[in-house]
Amino acid sequence: MTPRVRVVGTGLIGTSLGIALSRKGFEVTLSDPSPTAMRLARDLGAGVLADEAGQPPQLVVVAAPPDVAGSVVAHALRRWTDAVVTDVSSVKGAVVRAVRQQGGDLSRYVGSHPMAGRERSGAMAARADLFEGRAWVVVPTPESSPYAVELTREVARAVGSVVTVMDADEHDAAVAVVSHVPQVVASLVAGRLRDLSDDAVALAGQGLRDVTRIAASDPGLWTQILAGNAEAVREVLHQVRTDLDAVIAALSGLVEQGQPEQGHDSAGGDAPGALAAVSRAISDGNTGHARIPGKHGGGPTAYATVVVVVPDTPGALADLLSDVGAAGVNLEDLRLDHGLGLPFGLAEVFVLPTAVEHLQTALAARGWRVHD
Amino acid sequence: MTPRVRVVGTGLIGTSLGIALSRKGFEVTLSDPSPTAMRLARDLGAGVLADEAGQPPQLVVVAAPPDVAGSVVAHALRRWTDAVVTDVSSVKGAVVRAVRQQGGDLSRYVGSHPMAGRERSGAMAARADLFEGRAWVVVPTPESSPYAVELTREVARAVGSVVTVMDADEHDAAVAVVSHVPQVVASLVAGRLRDLSDDAVALAGQGLRDVTRIAASDPGLWTQILAGNAEAVREVLHQVRTDLDAVIAALSGLVEQGQPEQGHDSAGGDAPGALAAVSRAISDGNTGHARIPGKHGGGPTAYATVVVVVPDTPGALADLLSDVGAAGVNLEDLRLDHGLGLPFGLAEVFVLPTAVEHLQTALAARGWRVHD
Repeated sequence: MTPRVRVVGTGLIGTSLGIALSRKGFEVTLSDPSPTAMRLARDLGAGVLADEAGQPPQLVVVAAPPDVAGSVVAHALRRWTDAVVTDVSSVKGAVVRAVRQQGGDLSRYVGSHPMAGRERSGAMAARADLFEGRAWVVVPTPESSPYAVELTREVARAVGSVVTVMDADEHDAAVAVVSHVPQVVASLVAGRLRDLSDDAVALAGQGLRDVTRIAASDPGLWTQILAGNAEAVREVLHQVRTDLDAVIAALSGLVEQGQPEQGHDSAGGDAPGALAAVSRAISDGNTGHARIPGKHGGGPTAYATVVVVVPDTPGALADLLSDVGAAGVNLEDLRLDHGLGLPFGLAEVFVLPTAVEHLQTALAARGWRVHD
Repeated sequence: MTPRVRVVGTGLIGTSLGIALSRKGFEVTLSDPSPTAMRLARDLGAGVLADEAGQPPQLVVVAAPPDVAGSVVAHALRRWTDAVVTDVSSVKGAVVRAVRQQGGDLSRYVGSHPMAGRERSGAMAARADLFEGRAWVVVPTPESSPYAVELTREVARAVGSVVTVMDADEHDAAVAVVSHVPQVVASLVAGRLRDLSDDAVALAGQGLRDVTRIAASDPGLWTQILAGNAEAVREVLHQVRTDLDAVIAALSGLVEQGQPEQGHDSAGGDAPGALAAVSRAISDGNTGHARIPGKHGGGPTAYATVVVVVPDTPGALADLLSDVGAAGVNLEDLRLDHGLGLPFGLAEVFVLPTAVEHLQTALAARGWRVHD
């Protein structure tokens, strides 16, 4: 027996969820303040339009913008007095506080945070498989009933997500570090490019591209997210600022010491401590980076790379990967690195270290220019 | 007539340059404080070992670590009184200052910064095509002779680089923004992961992976680079800190206002200004990000993406790209996004916007699960 689900809010997440649940046989009804958005979601297969004469939902999923999610949850708890209500906002504490403040029945509320999204928003960007293989954090309150928690987990599993349970503070502190602060910092680094000369910007490399990719994100949505997690984000940004100050102080010491890096005649004073402080910032980053899980959520795996020169013509990369497959080697990841003004690029093929030699030989034999 | 070139320092850059120049018919001699490193470079085809009885070089390329580059350049200028000397350090002002301080003949010195590198270092990682299609910044001093500048440009062009000319201050200010500060900031963000719980780290997504990829860089090398460009890096870090303080202040305003994001009953006081400040940080990042040059060094190109579900099996991605090629569509870029604990991933195929519909139809017809 699958529960009757009401999806409130038919943007990217709500519509994707409606499509995924409908395909799994759930009975999904849809509502949205915008009749157009609601009908679009229906036409995309997300469910049927809510009929107020119909049976009440057993689970309500609030997929409203973060700045109204708490009010919409509180309203849903009042309106459907037997239903479990969850919301999919990327910040959880603020929603719980709003529900509590508005006297909502917290025994029937459980927060959710499906770790899925796209650069595009709105129902048209919806995908049935948006949640497949993604983490879905289930966030009970102290009052949440076991039934409410289990129903929320069931929906998450039904759409293919991997469920993790955390309380709201844990969740918000975690996403501050792994998502919200990286967004702020990427935006600040990208912001520094505004006033740069064209010649200077032209020196940008892959490192800058990677660091600033998410700086293209939507300011409206991110303002809501950061405001909703203001306390946790502020705390982590404070820590970043402390670390930043240490680097700035160290560099100031080096400037005043007169550039000790040219070494042989100026290596006194504060410089040794200053160099150690700079080095510590980079090596602490090494340590933190090594903790990021690898492919498929497993522990970080050290892949080896084989670098191959690929002409910039249709099918060339396909030929390469076909030859990788023909060599019996599984491609673990792939990174393309385009040359500047040249008709070819470099493909970095990530494979298990044990496969490197065999792959190099096999590709070279098929005429590829190969490097390790 | 190609000039006789002496490469001083046979690490990644020196050895790669030696191999590339040797293949172009240049007469390259090699030296390095480590006899082992020098012989390895020779065996890799980078040139012949320096023979002190032989003819003196016409161009000396100093490819020594940044912290000794200035002294090595000054020594080379004294030793070969007719040779032009360049160095390939990624920071230029510090080298010029050291050469000037040591009384080197600046008319024969020109700085270089080939924008090429790898995650690995040492001669074994050398590649003949390391410089192909890369920017190579030629950095004359006010004293540099036109002949010295032209000879340096000639070598850069010979190995396939695209030459840009800047003075040392311009260069150092540019790389502070596009390379050195992104490194510091990526390291600081990654450093925040050190003390996180495993559950929290498990929520890491592609955004964090991108922002922190370069946090895996070598602390020793980066300490030298940052120390060598201490003044310019410090200035940009100061600007980042000012922007960071504005975000922290805005978030503090929001915390004190009691989380105005839940909206309907708390939207007074400082919150509107605070929200605007947060939004400005993100939208300034949008503006800066849009300035980063696209593929092949041209202006930023807006590619459209087609998202395809790819089974995690040997050859699957090759089959996909083969079908992309068969559809007559040129792949502009490719991003792989692996599911969590699932036997497939999503491939985002970047193509020209005009090719999207045709490609979607063509791939769907060949049985791929396609999204836009």
